[in-house]
Amino acid sequence: MRAVDIIQRKRNGETLTASEIAFIVNGYCSGAVPDYQMSAWAMAVFFQGMTAEETAELTTAMANSGDTLDLSAIDGIKVDKHSTGGVGDKTTLIVAPLVAAAGVPVAKMSGRGLGHTGGTVDKLESIPGFRTELAREAFIRQVNETGLAVVGQSGDMAPADKKLYALRDVTATVESVPLIASSVMSKKIAAGADAIVLDVKAGGGAFMKTVEDAERLAEAMVAIGTEVGRQTAAVISDMDQPLGFAIGNALEVAEAVETLQGRGPEDLTSLCLTLASHMVVLGGQAKTVEEARALLEAKLSGGEAFAKFRAFVAAQGGDVGAVDDPRLLPQAAALMEVRAEAEGYVRRIDAEKLGIAAMRLGAGRATKEEAIDHAVGVVLSRKIGDAVRSGDVIAMLHARADAGAAAEVAAEVREAFEIGPEAPAGRSLVLSVVTKDGIERFV
Amino acid sequence: MRAVDIIQRKRNGETLTASEIAFIVNGYCSGAVPDYQMSAWAMAVFFQGMTAEETAELTTAMANSGDTLDLSAIDGIKVDKHSTGGVGDKTTLIVAPLVAAAGVPVAKMSGRGLGHTGGTVDKLESIPGFRTELAREAFIRQVNETGLAVVGQSGDMAPADKKLYALRDVTATVESVPLIASSVMSKKIAAGADAIVLDVKAGGGAFMKTVEDAERLAEAMVAIGTEVGRQTAAVISDMDQPLGFAIGNALEVAEAVETLQGRGPEDLTSLCLTLASHMVVLGGQAKTVEEARALLEAKLSGGEAFAKFRAFVAAQGGDVGAVDDPRLLPQAAALMEVRAEAEGYVRRIDAEKLGIAAMRLGAGRATKEEAIDHAVGVVLSRKIGDAVRSGDVIAMLHARADAGAAAEVAAEVREAFEIGPEAPAGRSLVLSVVTKDGIERFV
Repeated sequence: MRAVDIIQRKRNGETLTASEIAFIVNGYCSGAVPDYQMSAWAMAVFFQGMTAEETAELTTAMANSGDTLDLSAIDGIKVDKHSTGGVGDKTTLIVAPLVAAAGVPVAKMSGRGLGHTGGTVDKLESIPGFRTELAREAFIRQVNETGLAVVGQSGDMAPADKKLYALRDVTATVESVPLIASSVMSKKIAAGADAIVLDVKAGGGAFMKTVEDAERLAEAMVAIGTEVGRQTAAVISDMDQPLGFAIGNALEVAEAVETLQGRGPEDLTSLCLTLASHMVVLGGQAKTVEEARALLEAKLSGGEAFAKFRAFVAAQGGDVGAVDDPRLLPQAAALMEVRAEAEGYVRRIDAEKLGIAAMRLGAGRATKEEAIDHAVGVVLSRKIGDAVRSGDVIAMLHARADAGAAAEVAAEVREAFEIGPEAPAGRSLVLSVVTKDGIERFV
Repeated sequence: MRAVDIIQRKRNGETLTASEIAFIVNGYCSGAVPDYQMSAWAMAVFFQGMTAEETAELTTAMANSGDTLDLSAIDGIKVDKHSTGGVGDKTTLIVAPLVAAAGVPVAKMSGRGLGHTGGTVDKLESIPGFRTELAREAFIRQVNETGLAVVGQSGDMAPADKKLYALRDVTATVESVPLIASSVMSKKIAAGADAIVLDVKAGGGAFMKTVEDAERLAEAMVAIGTEVGRQTAAVISDMDQPLGFAIGNALEVAEAVETLQGRGPEDLTSLCLTLASHMVVLGGQAKTVEEARALLEAKLSGGEAFAKFRAFVAAQGGDVGAVDDPRLLPQAAALMEVRAEAEGYVRRIDAEKLGIAAMRLGAGRATKEEAIDHAVGVVLSRKIGDAVRSGDVIAMLHARADAGAAAEVAAEVREAFEIGPEAPAGRSLVLSVVTKDGIERFV
């Protein structure tokens, strides 16, 4: 078998065999297939696509390229959740204890953030004492005892994906549905999930700009899950503004606590309930999504979801007092109001601009080595559709005392708001759901 | 400027600017653009193509990437010839003295062969004493005095093309018309030609399998020539069997001598006259192709073409006696007849199989380092359309005395002949001619 023949067959639109795909992925990992062949192959895939079977083979080969997590010692169906990313996305902090409260075990490996705000692990570390490194045995024991554990990524998971992603990034081969889908799914499969719920964002602020593109990606990922025997569902949601109001690590933990106490922002609560409902169904704790949602709403209002979060924080060494009273979480030294300079309605909020603003305040890192300031960030006080008068506070910056750049950042935050004379048309947050049975559209 | 953006623009079907193309070619040469970006770019070009302007910019950038030959000290319009290759192709040996005899100066750099039989330089070196290395001043002086010189490639000509071609070879990006066209033309332009006549083969034994594909390649090359101010014409000819009868270095020199003396095989003579006619027109020594052909036929029959060849051989130190009496060229130790085992008509001759057979006898090299045996090869005695009876000699092997493999090679040569009960339809050798004014088709 020669890599050049495999590239040529894909270039010519032929379907590769499982052994051809394994050959190129394993060869790439071992160094036998050089970067320049892999990038030509990725470009051929960009143009010719891959069948569902090919994509599943690619995913499996990448999942098996490094360490895999064996969760079989945990009772029940382990359901993982993945988000294609977004500014102010704190859904994991809410969904994980919520579904755990409903009897679905959550054994989650989560990443740190690069760019914009931190990842889930960074957010959790804003709780004083919280440990995100657990030995494998302790991790599994905690899930069996508490129903829930979240740790940072350890080991060498799906290294083929890591290497290929870095290559795609510099060879203009990122935007390929089978390559994106296999990248996401290979990591989830290596992390040991029995079933997977995907949170796919669509819109200007997201990687997939249109709902059609997001649906195509969702279908590809659901097809992979079906092909490899991991039930998968994907929820496609609107990403034309940040989720909730808070952007920044401790600020998002505080908002997650409110939401777990039933007092959270409507959009955030609604999306979390939808994602969690599908997880509960795949986890076998409800027959239908409607039944699951009723169960989860009860867990929220009955306090069991928040109780589960407290138990989880305690189990990982976090200060439960700071969860009960978020004023004990790290607090920024300076607050700065951002005021509207126009009158009308908020028509659009540029989530990416806000993410960059939060990063500039210190909430995210531009390079892997940078430290994160857990306290800083941006809290919105207006969302799309809200009426605004000139001079109204539309956001609050939580900044460092010495943040000379805060005034500049305030201007950027103001520019992220598009204010116009007419109220925008109402939009649904959840646009569609893709399962192995097809697409259900809500708009 | 970033290579990834240039790749992405090409991937999206956009037209690259001259400075983008120069950036990627020069960057690739200097090492600033790594192999993996160049191969992804080449694959994007494979799918999206290039405009005539882009292809010309690519050609120019590659031609300027290394040494260039300045032929301005030679009087007259220097017309170069290039063949896309073929088994038993000895046209340069005939065409160069022929056009020189008609007043068109030929200052040619030629390559050594890899695979199949040798290149023009290898063939010339089968003449005892012939030197293919001349200092630049001697080379130019000889063209001014004799009208003709052929030397081996020296210096670092079009290194970007060399590097890119090697990369394309292992990344399944060879078969791209703009990349093939720019590769050929960059070398001709670096070699200083004022005008170029291309000999493009079409058919089963050629790189371009159909006449349509060959015409597309020819059009791309003619467009480059027009774009960069080097008049270019392309002759598309049938390559479903070897040209002439001889395959092997000294054997081909002997056949070239016969042809220059007006006694050559009809197909070889005809193609050489066509190529030479276009060279004479571009060289300004005739107004029309018909006028040029009449002039050249007179040079052949009048002995001036052969006289020019003798003078050329003498000027480069070759033994003119061996040209006058080709029995003084290197002779193989053993002859072995290949006989037909079927009756009927020759319907097809697999030129590639014959090329490999000649190489196995020692006429070509599989690796750059191998030495060539100038004496060995294959001489056909039947061509397509000829009647054959079982037991007839269809070819003669010229082999080494100790060539134990000759019996095996004989079987391969026999298999290269397809013999059927019915005579094949007659075919023209020259299929079409492409100039800047369009395509003229002869079939």
